[in-house]
Amino acid sequence: MVINMIYLDNAATTKPSEAAAVAMMKVVEEFGNPSSLHGAGLRAEKLINTAKQTIAAKLGGSPRALYFTSGGTEANNLAVIGAARARRRGGERVIVSAIEHPSVLEAARQLEREGFDVRFAPVTGEGRVDTDAIKALITPETVVVSVMHVNNETGVIQPVEEIASAVKKAAPKAVLHCDCVQSFGKLPININRLGADLISISAHKIHGFKGVGALYMKDPRVSPIIHGGEQQQGIRPGTENIGGILAFAAAAAECHEDVAAMKKKRALMAAELAAEIGDIQINGSEDHNSGSVLNVSIMGIKAEILLHALERDGVYISTGSACSSHKPQPSHVLTAMGVPQRAITGAVRISFSAATTEEEIKTAARAIAKETAEIRRYM
Amino acid sequence: MVINMIYLDNAATTKPSEAAAVAMMKVVEEFGNPSSLHGAGLRAEKLINTAKQTIAAKLGGSPRALYFTSGGTEANNLAVIGAARARRRGGERVIVSAIEHPSVLEAARQLEREGFDVRFAPVTGEGRVDTDAIKALITPETVVVSVMHVNNETGVIQPVEEIASAVKKAAPKAVLHCDCVQSFGKLPININRLGADLISISAHKIHGFKGVGALYMKDPRVSPIIHGGEQQQGIRPGTENIGGILAFAAAAAECHEDVAAMKKKRALMAAELAAEIGDIQINGSEDHNSGSVLNVSIMGIKAEILLHALERDGVYISTGSACSSHKPQPSHVLTAMGVPQRAITGAVRISFSAATTEEEIKTAARAIAKETAEIRRYM
Repeated sequence: MVINMIYLDNAATTKPSEAAAVAMMKVVEEFGNPSSLHGAGLRAEKLINTAKQTIAAKLGGSPRALYFTSGGTEANNLAVIGAARARRRGGERVIVSAIEHPSVLEAARQLEREGFDVRFAPVTGEGRVDTDAIKALITPETVVVSVMHVNNETGVIQPVEEIASAVKKAAPKAVLHCDCVQSFGKLPININRLGADLISISAHKIHGFKGVGALYMKDPRVSPIIHGGEQQQGIRPGTENIGGILAFAAAAAECHEDVAAMKKKRALMAAELAAEIGDIQINGSEDHNSGSVLNVSIMGIKAEILLHALERDGVYISTGSACSSHKPQPSHVLTAMGVPQRAITGAVRISFSAATTEEEIKTAARAIAKETAEIRRYM
Repeated sequence: MVINMIYLDNAATTKPSEAAAVAMMKVVEEFGNPSSLHGAGLRAEKLINTAKQTIAAKLGGSPRALYFTSGGTEANNLAVIGAARARRRGGERVIVSAIEHPSVLEAARQLEREGFDVRFAPVTGEGRVDTDAIKALITPETVVVSVMHVNNETGVIQPVEEIASAVKKAAPKAVLHCDCVQSFGKLPININRLGADLISISAHKIHGFKGVGALYMKDPRVSPIIHGGEQQQGIRPGTENIGGILAFAAAAAECHEDVAAMKKKRALMAAELAAEIGDIQINGSEDHNSGSVLNVSIMGIKAEILLHALERDGVYISTGSACSSHKPQPSHVLTAMGVPQRAITGAVRISFSAATTEEEIKTAARAIAKETAEIRRYM
């Protein structure tokens, strides 16, 4: 990549770690098909089982409950669509928060097309799901509730535990799905403490490779969305992406969930920007934040122009999420939070990795200030 | 793996090539998210586009028609389920051959559960789809016909061109899907000459990595089975498996479709086995064969016992397909061909790669003969 690149778009994707790369290359020699009955197949199967143990342990769960997918998007689809279809006899209400990732929102819209009674739970100005509002939506006919752990645009931690209690009380037939793509490896997660039944995770957000994720299922009663062979109990057939899976486990093993360190990075960036640029606004809760994402509105600029200007400084940040970057619409997350239009227009997402240094943050903040001044002059 | 391993299970999976491994490692540095608007994202997007060109050219098609999936299974599902659901207003008949891969058969069974009128076309004793029988099934209400190019258990080439003409004549609203997972890189394929509308391919069958495949769509009117972001026109959202995609293209570029060379390997193995073992039977057409697979029934043995015995000789072959290896049922392919039960029980699949040597074939044949003699003594 660019020399001296300062990559602050880690919520979009991360650089594969050396350990992940080594794990991926293992399958150049151990290339057996895990479904093959001979030794090469059995060795591949064993490698997958070891990877499952590593990853499941990070969730405080059992390796048998982990199902690999092609990524977070497929995991979210299998959870929301798969669980709803499998439970349709029990009811038709599906509740997702308004700030979920497009793969949850669009899965919910697909269920709507199939006749499900889909409700979108609002969020507060701080970007947290409004617990009173979501409680009011939970009926005994509710079959799926999906609330993410950490929002991908703001880093805001959602009140999943509280929602879990409410779901258990008011909707005994429902499963709670939690998209942990942005929290896995960053916050400590224990599935029982979190209270979720289904958890989605993704490798490329934690320095693994793109193309692999997983759905952890305490309750595997989901209708498959892909049909075929016997792999993964037929719940997710298809030859396993074993290289990606081994790399995922290697990357997961290296995660330290050092929330304090991430919060320090985020606070430093916020302070530097506040010191160097006037008329900015931080979006999303300060108290409930993973520290991995800083969403900041710089008034009087267009975020896209800043983003491109920063490229010549070797600084990579983003507007909203990469998954909806080619959409001309304003961020659905900031919109749901009630952020005013001009603040949305100037909103950038700066996201950190464990490797991000103080020096990089300071250099990037100076570059952002310099380019902002330049842009403001012409707007 | 095992020293001096003779790997003859290339229809199940193949060893990633050096070029594929190098391509995969490229994304350790070029790790941008193809959906990101900054330079790292754009470079990733360009790499994907170049890969698309390489792969699409191998099909005589356009890069814009290629959609990446997590593998052959997902590609087959998106084709069969996606195309049928998108065309339901035009009719409800879906026709698949009886010898398709489980990912096509199970996708068809899912459509059956949704109320589609699914028909399974029979095959001849030679393992080719019975063209008269399938023609009789094609009605104007037919929306999807799915017939594979080369069968994964027998290597038999299917009469796709003839079926394509029949579909065009009798079912103008139908699309013809062709699962080319076992032919891509082995037989020359030109989508127009083949007459298919949709083509599935997979990387790990041609020395790429597991976890990536593609669906080539002349007509992209399919209902997505995974919902989410804007990637791949929303038809197949989710961050692209860029490492796997680059490796897929690198592996595809190395394929030479040398059918004569593969047929020679297959003929040599057949001759060696015939010379060394009595009472064997080759399953599937000799004339219409890709050469990459030899399916042979060794009477008086159980294939699984032979398979495990051969491991101590370092020879890896398989019974039926890996995808249904853990099923206790007899091969649905050989059953559909009318192969007698005792011949199915003793049926093994020996599958070659371009790298398989004459020496390996001769050594493996001797090992098969030796172990067969041993097993026959005790059965």
